[in-house]
Amino acid sequence: MPDVLILTEADLRACVRLDLPMVDAMAEAFARLSAGEVRMPPVLRLDVPEHNGEIDVKTAFVPGIDSIAMKMSPGFFNNPTLGLPSLNGLMVLLSARTGLVEALLLDNGYLTDVRTAAAGAVAARTLAPRGPGLTAGVLGAGTQARLQMEALALVRDLRQVLVWAREPAKAEAYARDMTSRLGLPVHPVASPEAAVAESDVVVTTTPSRQPLIHQDWLHPGLHITAMGSDAEDKGELAPEVLAAADLVVCDRIAQCAVLGELHHALDRGLSVSPVELGTLVHARDGARPSEEAVTVCDLTGTGVQDTVIATLAHAAAQRQGLGREFHA
Amino acid sequence: MPDVLILTEADLRACVRLDLPMVDAMAEAFARLSAGEVRMPPVLRLDVPEHNGEIDVKTAFVPGIDSIAMKMSPGFFNNPTLGLPSLNGLMVLLSARTGLVEALLLDNGYLTDVRTAAAGAVAARTLAPRGPGLTAGVLGAGTQARLQMEALALVRDLRQVLVWAREPAKAEAYARDMTSRLGLPVHPVASPEAAVAESDVVVTTTPSRQPLIHQDWLHPGLHITAMGSDAEDKGELAPEVLAAADLVVCDRIAQCAVLGELHHALDRGLSVSPVELGTLVHARDGARPSEEAVTVCDLTGTGVQDTVIATLAHAAAQRQGLGREFHA
Repeated sequence: MPDVLILTEADLRACVRLDLPMVDAMAEAFARLSAGEVRMPPVLRLDVPEHNGEIDVKTAFVPGIDSIAMKMSPGFFNNPTLGLPSLNGLMVLLSARTGLVEALLLDNGYLTDVRTAAAGAVAARTLAPRGPGLTAGVLGAGTQARLQMEALALVRDLRQVLVWAREPAKAEAYARDMTSRLGLPVHPVASPEAAVAESDVVVTTTPSRQPLIHQDWLHPGLHITAMGSDAEDKGELAPEVLAAADLVVCDRIAQCAVLGELHHALDRGLSVSPVELGTLVHARDGARPSEEAVTVCDLTGTGVQDTVIATLAHAAAQRQGLGREFHA
Repeated sequence: MPDVLILTEADLRACVRLDLPMVDAMAEAFARLSAGEVRMPPVLRLDVPEHNGEIDVKTAFVPGIDSIAMKMSPGFFNNPTLGLPSLNGLMVLLSARTGLVEALLLDNGYLTDVRTAAAGAVAARTLAPRGPGLTAGVLGAGTQARLQMEALALVRDLRQVLVWAREPAKAEAYARDMTSRLGLPVHPVASPEAAVAESDVVVTTTPSRQPLIHQDWLHPGLHITAMGSDAEDKGELAPEVLAAADLVVCDRIAQCAVLGELHHALDRGLSVSPVELGTLVHARDGARPSEEAVTVCDLTGTGVQDTVIATLAHAAAQRQGLGREFHA
């Protein structure tokens, strides 16, 4: 058997970063997904309620990409009480020609973080108001809340960021850290409503099971990207928000109809006609229906993103001579 | 993060074997599955017809077992032309309490081979005629055809084995090797019909998409275990065989109804009332309805078997000091 390349989180942080080429790669991934070129089975999900845990497996085959990632994402939400992070994971990269294991990417969720943030940048580039000088709001103050604002700053000129989190101390820490990281003012706000009221672009990054954003807060020229929901019982937007929006965009319609914000709107029998992100990413001037439109993007996370980032990471690590060959 | 233990195929061959304790462990796994204690999502399957390949992912959470295996099984059937085996795979062992990766079992499919053969032994111990001096027939001459007869010999006294394979040279090689391995006569036969006619127990081990065994060959006192089908389009038994049998047993009814022999019988609208293997494994005198009965066991392979064998392998490797710790 050929050797297997083992890459640690440190290796992967050294060769993969959130930058415009990564955003472009994700845009292309969505385009190919929506063009019907990708074979992507439904997410495998194992719930472990005994330990407040869940494990998702995502994968996709992309013609022309010689590898397939199998991505395992565990979320075990008692971990912080044990001094461990809630989210973890690894990716296994298999040859698309032979099925042999090419690499083990022990990323502890880092690659998922980057590809998820990059998808947020694709959504913003396609749907957010053009600016300059936008105000961005973010709900949540964790890793994705940080990365999503870095991603947004890659594709839009921001004037300020407003952050809301359930625990005010976390929003304050976020504001401190991100002010220096983004090089612009970041202010905590007292409620989701306050964040939405002032913002041109809002990104929701929480695992909430209760809607955080309500229809009567919507205002002309608002774009919302909701990336927190990836399970039947999660949802950050009141279903009426989707019904009221001028345009609803999904990373994968079939998946959002089960796991995303779209799911709850359909459950209520609301009239929503979603469009798939990949059909819009090549629109030269973006896809906002008008300056005053309200747009929503529902991101659930797709296996095609995992196959793309894992393949890029493997190639970059090989170029840089990172990792350790393991004779299996 | 805690270290990850990496185990190679050689490590795993040194600490895991097909023996009666393994058969007992699988029997217990099936019992718990049928008792509703196990959480086992449907198999994730990715087809790669461009390269004549497929990848399955299986998993299960078993209360009381502190680890969860995620098992990836690629089958790429052009591989032999490249000098590579068709079947491969690995298992990732995650903590059921934290989701952290505990071990990577780079077994190239060895553990799947063993747990599949052990399931065959469970089926035979539960359903095959008692003997002594049974004649066993096997269809196929690959790794599972070998392991299934070794497994059968653990639980039944055999007089002889009859082997049929599509390529007669393979059946002849099988007969040579297995005569010495099993210590009893192994004879190639010219057709599946010849194997069934003479046998008390038949095990089918092929990836056939055409039925190999037909209803009018059935005779009193015959048990058949079909373990080859694990996909919608595979099937080794004519659907009428299931309808004609006195007892049809499935490793997992819901899964056999999609991926197994049961699937084709249900598709034809035939009347079959399957029983789940785990409900029968503790029957003290087996579960044959009568000496003359015809019984069929449909094995599709279950994630609970993977979690059980991976957990046993991890513990055995730790006891023997095998593998290499890897700081991720």
